[in-house]
Amino acid sequence: MNYIQIIGYMAAFGTTISFLPQAVKTIRTKDTSGISLLMYTCFTLGTALWLTYGLLSSQYPVAVANAITFVFAATILIYKIKYK
Amino acid sequence: MNYIQIIGYMAAFGTTISFLPQAVKTIRTKDTSGISLLMYTCFTLGTALWLTYGLLSSQYPVAVANAITFVFAATILIYKIKYK
Repeated sequence: MNYIQIIGYMAAFGTTISFLPQAVKTIRTKDTSGISLLMYTCFTLGTALWLTYGLLSSQYPVAVANAITFVFAATILIYKIKYK
Repeated sequence: MNYIQIIGYMAAFGTTISFLPQAVKTIRTKDTSGISLLMYTCFTLGTALWLTYGLLSSQYPVAVANAITFVFAATILIYKIKYK
């Protein structure tokens, strides 16, 4: 693995895992007033499309990373709708 | 362009543009109590790494999409630090 690939994996890890602390915070506090409903609607749909794209094009790292992010984003979206 | 590529472009558009309504909402309301500092720290670093990866590997759509997302994410992060 060369250093460009290592940067790519670090990037994928950072952007994927970042939604975990947000999901944990939202579940714990139910404080969603500052969270944008439009953002999480777009983002959840976007990750579902990335997951579809990853599966159809056999790019499994894309599929796996977006499956994880989809779960976090969908959880935040559900809380936003329930506790707005 | 085949239908898999179209899904990929729709996915990229959705996940990139989704941070715009969040940035606008955060700038307007300065309400950042429900926003996770750890999320935006990780996510802003992640998009900076994606931008670096895109430039180094000559994957310019990756670089451009992440340059845009970086601006939105960094703005939200700055507001979170300033108005926590």
